[in-house]
Amino acid sequence: MGTVEIVDNARIRLLRFNRPDALNAFNDEMYHEAGRALTDGSARDDIACVVLTGTGRAFSAGQDLAEMGRLGPDAKQSDFGAEGPGFPHFLDTLAALDKPVIAAVNGIGVGIGMTMLLHVDVAFIATTARLRAPFVPLGVVPEAAGSLLMPVVMGNQRAAEKLYTGEWITAEEAVECGIALRAVPPAELMDATMDLAHRIARMPVASLRATKQMVVDARIDAVRAARAREDNQFRKMIGRPANMEAISAFLEKRDPDFSNL
Amino acid sequence: MGTVEIVDNARIRLLRFNRPDALNAFNDEMYHEAGRALTDGSARDDIACVVLTGTGRAFSAGQDLAEMGRLGPDAKQSDFGAEGPGFPHFLDTLAALDKPVIAAVNGIGVGIGMTMLLHVDVAFIATTARLRAPFVPLGVVPEAAGSLLMPVVMGNQRAAEKLYTGEWITAEEAVECGIALRAVPPAELMDATMDLAHRIARMPVASLRATKQMVVDARIDAVRAARAREDNQFRKMIGRPANMEAISAFLEKRDPDFSNL
Amino acid sequence: MGTVEIVDNARIRLLRFNRPDALNAFNDEMYHEAGRALTDGSARDDIACVVLTGTGRAFSAGQDLAEMGRLGPDAKQSDFGAEGPGFPHFLDTLAALDKPVIAAVNGIGVGIGMTMLLHVDVAFIATTARLRAPFVPLGVVPEAAGSLLMPVVMGNQRAAEKLYTGEWITAEEAVECGIALRAVPPAELMDATMDLAHRIARMPVASLRATKQMVVDARIDAVRAARAREDNQFRKMIGRPANMEAISAFLEKRDPDFSNL
Repeated sequence: MGTVEIVDNARIRLLRFNRPDALNAFNDEMYHEAGRALTDGSARDDIACVVLTGTGRAFSAGQDLAEMGRLGPDAKQSDFGAEGPGFPHFLDTLAALDKPVIAAVNGIGVGIGMTMLLHVDVAFIATTARLRAPFVPLGVVPEAAGSLLMPVVMGNQRAAEKLYTGEWITAEEAVECGIALRAVPPAELMDATMDLAHRIARMPVASLRATKQMVVDARIDAVRAARAREDNQFRKMIGRPANMEAISAFLEKRDPDFSNL
Repeated sequence: MGTVEIVDNARIRLLRFNRPDALNAFNDEMYHEAGRALTDGSARDDIACVVLTGTGRAFSAGQDLAEMGRLGPDAKQSDFGAEGPGFPHFLDTLAALDKPVIAAVNGIGVGIGMTMLLHVDVAFIATTARLRAPFVPLGVVPEAAGSLLMPVVMGNQRAAEKLYTGEWITAEEAVECGIALRAVPPAELMDATMDLAHRIARMPVASLRATKQMVVDARIDAVRAARAREDNQFRKMIGRPANMEAISAFLEKRDPDFSNL
Repeated sequence: MGTVEIVDNARIRLLRFNRPDALNAFNDEMYHEAGRALTDGSARDDIACVVLTGTGRAFSAGQDLAEMGRLGPDAKQSDFGAEGPGFPHFLDTLAALDKPVIAAVNGIGVGIGMTMLLHVDVAFIATTARLRAPFVPLGVVPEAAGSLLMPVVMGNQRAAEKLYTGEWITAEEAVECGIALRAVPPAELMDATMDLAHRIARMPVASLRATKQMVVDARIDAVRAARAREDNQFRKMIGRPANMEAISAFLEKRDPDFSNL
């Protein structure tokens, strides 16, 4: 079993982030496995849509911050996930995927664990789950086109409050601001998610693919421009003293949700 | 009386889709009559705004699917409404109109009967009405720039659920997701609609025209690019076996709402 | 004390519109003082964010209409605020500012007093406050990129109702349509606003600046294009008989909120 578990059934590809001991934080291997699972699901005519979820109690804790901290101030930029080849492989594949993607947010979603929701088509979220885009408190900037899409998807003002404070977004807030369609009790999360997946999977694949492709086409240029701006800024800020101090402070606070990182 | 009934009064042009026996489904004649009524209303200085509604129990059942079915697999692409000259005449005129347009959605709105709401300024909807964009289940793709505007107007996730399943949108959902401003009991629909129309009609026409023109200008390039992508895809998919089977299946299900088509 | 009061404390610049006898209507001096206060706050590394509010019972009554009326039909276009150098200095500075801006809307916001909220990051609004974009009833067109941003921020249909009638927006409606994040009792307005300002002010300034810059970059080209269209139309309509009559009628109605203009 790798970092990503794949189950294909009834024209639905279910993709589980599978590093539960690290709260499904992304390392380079997991970015690449997830990216390949998306590309492969997209290419197959017997797959109508993709479901993303996490094994264990988290959806994804995002980039592995403990690893970033260990790398220390002398690390090269390419040592960091968001600058390495894994992050863009996964994210840019997801952002351009020509099949509907549904997320079942079973627990915390932090960093890319939150911003990937800006690129899925529908998200169901457990009432107990929470989301966080902690880029500003970590001394860096948003990634995954969050600087463009958080305002577009969440509304300008709700995005701004969360973006400039890095504060948690509750499941209820996630639904109110449009990054999740519905909050459901944890025990019902997969049923609610798979119910929609099955309704979509009954549709002609050619129509799903062509329609999703056009939804992507309508915004992909803006997404790519935002990604380029973010990568450029990220490169300037990552590993700088302000960023290293912020990561240390963040890890030292030992938020119970991150206690095992 | 033609396929469209026009009543001009108190600086308001009221335009009624008038094929009640076909649930106001659009044939080529109705597309053109409606398009000309918009163009003419736009040109006149004594018309401040336009109201769209339907005669009988439907707003519009969209493209006449029975006709599409009758045309059969050997039909030329130009035999189909969305590829014929009627659809673009009506839709592109509406999308670029320099006067405010209000819809009074008195009953079901399907296909173009739903997607035209993405191009009006305000819609009031009867609490008993329902909307549907059944492009994917019919084996084709959205038209009327729906692939761009459903996400923009309804929010990404609410649009995705309806776009990829083709399921009905209730009046309450229509208001929640922003394709209607208010749901009102059927008996009050025209009063509520005309009340707003009268408030707008008291305004200086030159200001209404210049303001609406700028609202159009802010998005017309994106709308045209989406229309071009959709037309291109539509042409590839229409009349193909998957599409013909879907139309047959759709008609055979004999949804009571379509029982007279 | 000038037309704008500035208090810097705890990395927050508090900027109060300070013409209470004119309900904080903007004259050229106030546009320029406010613009300089923003530019200066942006340049300083010890300022994390900016708060905008009004002295007295109004947020801002917008452009001084009494002055516009006094100028009369023979005034040159450059005599009018929205065409003079003050308005673009303030508005274009606000629209491109690289620090988060929070508004505390303590009373009525009219014209630029409303449309500036389209360019702040978060607005808190007193439950007793009201907003208005009366461009169409005044015989002109929206400014401050309102023709682009009212639909984007408020939703197409809610924007259209208010844009084409020029009617008041209540505090509750302002929250529902996303031009304010929260409505709070007047006595709690500054506490709620400063609470968020303090949470933002704890963040690394370099991250706030780079993040806000990217949020701006994602839309500034569209904002500038809308501003150019609006300026062009405004120039054609201002001072014309329809506009002068509308201003006279507006002033003669003597809405109690404008009784001292």
